[in-house]
Amino acid sequence: MNNNADAPVAVIGLGLMGQALARTFLEAGHPTTVWNRTAGKADQLVAEGARLAPTVGNAIQAGTLTILCVTDYQVVHELLGASDVELGGTTLVNLTSGDSAQAREAARWAEQRGARYLDGAIMAIPPSIGTPDGVILHSGPQAVFEAHESTLGALGTVTYLGADYGLASLYDVAGLAMMWSVLNAWLQGTALLRTAGVDATTYAPFARRLAVEVAEWLPGYAEQIDNGSFPAEVSALETDVRAMTHLIEESEAVGVNAELPKLIKAMADRAIAAGHGGEQYPVLIEEFSKPRVG
Amino acid sequence: MNNNADAPVAVIGLGLMGQALARTFLEAGHPTTVWNRTAGKADQLVAEGARLAPTVGNAIQAGTLTILCVTDYQVVHELLGASDVELGGTTLVNLTSGDSAQAREAARWAEQRGARYLDGAIMAIPPSIGTPDGVILHSGPQAVFEAHESTLGALGTVTYLGADYGLASLYDVAGLAMMWSVLNAWLQGTALLRTAGVDATTYAPFARRLAVEVAEWLPGYAEQIDNGSFPAEVSALETDVRAMTHLIEESEAVGVNAELPKLIKAMADRAIAAGHGGEQYPVLIEEFSKPRVG
Ligand SMILES: NC(=O)c1ccc[n+]([C@@H]2O[C@H](COP(=O)([O-])OP(=O)(O)OC[C@H]3O[C@@H](n4cnc5c(N)ncnc54)[C@H](OP(=O)(O)O)[C@@H]3O)[C@@H](O)[C@H]2O)c1
Ligand SMILES: NC(=O)c1ccc[n+]([C@@H]2O[C@H](COP(=O)([O-])OP(=O)(O)OC[C@H]3O[C@@H](n4cnc5c(N)ncnc54)[C@H](OP(=O)(O)O)[C@@H]3O)[C@@H](O)[C@H]2O)c1
Repeated sequence: MNNNADAPVAVIGLGLMGQALARTFLEAGHPTTVWNRTAGKADQLVAEGARLAPTVGNAIQAGTLTILCVTDYQVVHELLGASDVELGGTTLVNLTSGDSAQAREAARWAEQRGARYLDGAIMAIPPSIGTPDGVILHSGPQAVFEAHESTLGALGTVTYLGADYGLASLYDVAGLAMMWSVLNAWLQGTALLRTAGVDATTYAPFARRLAVEVAEWLPGYAEQIDNGSFPAEVSALETDVRAMTHLIEESEAVGVNAELPKLIKAMADRAIAAGHGGEQYPVLIEEFSKPRVG
Repeated sequence: MNNNADAPVAVIGLGLMGQALARTFLEAGHPTTVWNRTAGKADQLVAEGARLAPTVGNAIQAGTLTILCVTDYQVVHELLGASDVELGGTTLVNLTSGDSAQAREAARWAEQRGARYLDGAIMAIPPSIGTPDGVILHSGPQAVFEAHESTLGALGTVTYLGADYGLASLYDVAGLAMMWSVLNAWLQGTALLRTAGVDATTYAPFARRLAVEVAEWLPGYAEQIDNGSFPAEVSALETDVRAMTHLIEESEAVGVNAELPKLIKAMADRAIAAGHGGEQYPVLIEEFSKPRVG
C-alpha cells in the first residue's frame, strides 16, 4: 500500500468503528488527532500516541483529512454546525451510515462552507479495518478521492464508485441486501433439510455452490436489463413459477417458514400478470423498480 | 465418464425434458425404449434409433432401468397403476418434480410391488442434459444408485444425496430458493443503483462479488447451527437490523420496491423479539424453522 504516512489526519467519533479507524491510522504512522463527545473513549488512543482535540473545530483544523464516523447524519450536522467549526479548505470524509439523499445533502452543505467532501460507506466490522477485508466505498469528486487515496488506503480496501455522492450509500445497502438474501436462502434450505435429519454442515457446501454458480450469471443477465429485452434463453418465468409452487408446498408440508418462498412467488406472479410469463427472470426488474401498490 | 453403454434403458414421458433424456441415452449408445401418451412425440427419437413401446408395461420390461419424467406424481401413479404393468424386479428412477412426501410415498408404493426405486430431481434445463451442467440429484438406496451410476452418468453430473427418498426434492427446492434469492437481491440492488443512473452491467460485478463472499461464510455459520450456539463473533443481529432499516428507508426514498427489505427485517425483528438481538445472524434458523403464526 502506497501510503504517505506523514499526512496528519483527524477522526471525529470514537465509537467501536471510529476507534478502529483512529488506531489504524496511528499504526500506519499518521499523526492522528481525535475527538469524541465522551472524551474518555480517547484515553487508550492518546496513550498510543493520538492527540485529543478539545473541540470538533480544533480537530478539523489539525488534519489534511477529517474522518467523520458517528451514529447518523443528524449527529454529523450537529457537530459540524458548531460555532467554532471552520470548514473552508478542509477535506471531510464522512463514513457515517446513512442514505443517498442524506449524503448528497451533507455534501452540498459542506461544500457551500468551502469544504471538499467525500461520502463513504464501511462494508466491514471494526476488527477488519486495516486489513484487506476492510472494504470502504467512496463517492464524490474523483480528484478529492485521488488526492487522499493513499491515506485512506491505510484503512483497508478502498474503492471509488463515482461522482454522485449518493453512490456509496446505495452500493452499501445493495450489498447488504445480497448478504442477507444469501443468508436467508441458506437458512430456508437448512430448515428444509433439517426436517429430513440433514445437518447444517452437510447442507452448507451445496448452498455455497449454488450461490456461487448463480452469482456468475449476473453479468450476463445484467445485459438483458440494459438492453430492455428478456428473451427466455434459459427458461421462461412461467416455468420458474411452477417450481416456486413446489418450494412453497414443500415448506408448508414439512412445517418450516414459507414467507420467503411466498414473496419470491408473489413478485414473479405480478410480472406474469403484467404479461411477462414467456420472458426470462431479469424481467422482474420492472417489479423491483416500483413500489408495491395496493 | 465410465458409462456401460450396453445397458438397455427405458424413458417414460417425452415432454421437453424426457426427449432430452432419451436422446442423450441414444447418443451414448444405450438401447433405448420410449413411451409417451402422445405417441407422435416419439417419431424423431425412433428415427434416431429408439424403440417405441406400445404400453408403459412393455417399456418397463425393456430396460434394466426405467426413467420416469412426466408432469407430476399423479401422472406417475396413473401410469404405473395400469393393469399390464409388472414392477417385480425392475428399477425405476423417477425424475418427475414433486415434494419429499410424494417421493417417499412413491418409493413405498413401488417397492411394495417389487421394484427398486430411486427418486431424482433435475437441476438443469433440457439443453444441459448430457453435459456437466446437467446436474441430477438422486436419493434412495445407495446400492441401487451405485448399480446404475454409470448409466445415469450419461445424463450429466449425477449426485447421490442419501437413503431418504425425499432428499432429492428437498435439495432441489432449497437450491432453487438460493437461485431466486441471489437473483432477487441482485434485482433489488440493480433497481436501487439505476435510480442514480448506474446501469445494470456496471453494478453486476459488485453484486457477484458480494454473493460469492457471503457464500464462503456458510460452512462456518453452519457450525453455529449444528452447535446450537450463536455467539456474535462478527456482528450482532441488532447491528444488522439497524442497517436493515437503512435498506428499507433507502428503497422507499428512491421509490423502488421495499417488500424484500421489509421481509428481511421482519424475520430479524422476530428473532430479536425472541431475545436473540445479541447473537449472530444464523440464530434466525429458529424463525426459518417454524411456520409464521398469526
Ligand atoms: N460498528 C460496525 O460494525 C460498523 C460497520 C459499518 C458501519 N458502521 C457505521 O459507523 C458509524 C459509527 O458506528 P459505531 O459502531 O462506531 O457506533 P457506536 O459505537 O454506537 O458509536 C457512535 C458514535 O457516535 C457518537 N455520537 C452519537 N450521538 C452523538 C451526539 N449527539 N453528539 C456527538 N456524538 C455522538 C458517539 O459518541 P459517544 O461515545 O459520546 O456516545 C460515538 O462516538 C455508524 O454510522 C455505523 O452505522 C459501523
Ligand atoms: N423442462 C425443464 O426445464 C425441467 C427442468 C427440471 C425438471 N423438470 C421436470 O421434468 C418433468 C417433465 O417436464 P417437461 O419439461 O418434460 O414437461 P412437459 O414438456 O410439459 O411434458 C410433460 C410430460 O408428461 C406427460 N403427461 C402429462 N400428463 C399425462 C397423463 N395424464 N398421462 C400420461 N402422460 C402425461 C406428457 O405427455 P404428452 O406429451 O402426451 O402431453 C409429457 O410427456 C416435470 O416434473 C418437470 O418439473 C423439467
